[in-house]
Amino acid sequence: MADLNGKEKMVNEKVISPAVIKRLPRYYRYLGDLLRNDVVRISSKELSEKMNVTASQIRQDLNNFGGFGQQGYGYNVEYLYNEMGKILGLNKQNNIIILGAGNLGQAIANNSDFDHNGFHIIGLFDVNPKLIGMTVKGVEVYDIDMLADFIASHDVKIAALTLPKSKAPKVAKDLADLGVKAIWNFAPVDLSLPDDVIIENVHLSESIMTLSYRIHSREQE
Amino acid sequence: MADLNGKEKMVNEKVISPAVIKRLPRYYRYLGDLLRNDVVRISSKELSEKMNVTASQIRQDLNNFGGFGQQGYGYNVEYLYNEMGKILGLNKQNNIIILGAGNLGQAIANNSDFDHNGFHIIGLFDVNPKLIGMTVKGVEVYDIDMLADFIASHDVKIAALTLPKSKAPKVAKDLADLGVKAIWNFAPVDLSLPDDVIIENVHLSESIMTLSYRIHSREQE
Repeated sequence: MADLNGKEKMVNEKVISPAVIKRLPRYYRYLGDLLRNDVVRISSKELSEKMNVTASQIRQDLNNFGGFGQQGYGYNVEYLYNEMGKILGLNKQNNIIILGAGNLGQAIANNSDFDHNGFHIIGLFDVNPKLIGMTVKGVEVYDIDMLADFIASHDVKIAALTLPKSKAPKVAKDLADLGVKAIWNFAPVDLSLPDDVIIENVHLSESIMTLSYRIHSREQE
Repeated sequence: MADLNGKEKMVNEKVISPAVIKRLPRYYRYLGDLLRNDVVRISSKELSEKMNVTASQIRQDLNNFGGFGQQGYGYNVEYLYNEMGKILGLNKQNNIIILGAGNLGQAIANNSDFDHNGFHIIGLFDVNPKLIGMTVKGVEVYDIDMLADFIASHDVKIAALTLPKSKAPKVAKDLADLGVKAIWNFAPVDLSLPDDVIIENVHLSESIMTLSYRIHSREQE
């Protein structure tokens, strides 16, 4: 029975493509905006016009999770928003530590969007004595030597790497050894970690090069 | 003849899928690392092992641009690096202004990876009197009231939006009206601009929600 269950879950996971997963946070953002504007109900057609995707795409995407609308009645905005939040794991507390308390680390610590969605920054770490001991939005910057003790005594779900490329691989390996299972990597390097560690990369250099490519290829038209 | 040419160019553009374009900066990064390590020549097999993609994928991707290797001889690293840089438009000077001189704007201005690749931050803009007049890595923070004059007198290729969601749509529209054709948008909002303005989004909230989804769905296995 346990096996069958496991199998079903695996099948379920396979069905949901990375492209769908990438769209979920955008649905969540639009539904949050609607909710704040006191919209109670919305059809997939109205939502599709707002989001600039097709209504059939929206229906298909949501059907991956069982569908949330009733034919002809549209979606209850608050219900869909809350269910989408659960799917994204935002109903749980996701504690984050930030490795590297420079501008980028501070920008993340200061971003209030994260707070609203169950992400809590619980500590920053750095090697720079000028930064150690300061607080960012009430959160302390610790000496990186305290990392092991901190992780042992806190429920750290995610570690954000906002440190130089040269230091990222070693710190990422330390984090994995200390049991951290999710890395949000801003360093311009591909981390090589055990399979059970989830890595989400934000490569700003690659993003701006993609933009440059698009500018440049248009100029050649 | 002009028409035919236009058509060919369009066909050329269609052939290169967004997925390929997204991979180019990663090739460029790896080639740069090889070059700095004095590697002169590399086979697609060796490159594929380093990059954790298949050799056939590499050959296919590069063939989109005419291919750069000779069967059995591999790629000349420096030549491929330089050609890739040209494709990405990194051989041109891409001047950037940053709208919003808070932590995130400063993090971008301080990122030396950009300098190395032909991206030059030439000005930051803010409304906050505490920030106006300061310099970040030698670049001045201007009053946003000076934006129109600045754009009229400088060759601004890209505007980075590192300001609050509430202000981003208005500033983006102003930038488009002032002739800026490429927006690097960090605000958590979808900008609606004329078709000739290229937008590249970096939505940090969506990135961390995708990570949270992956953590959460794994916990349910």
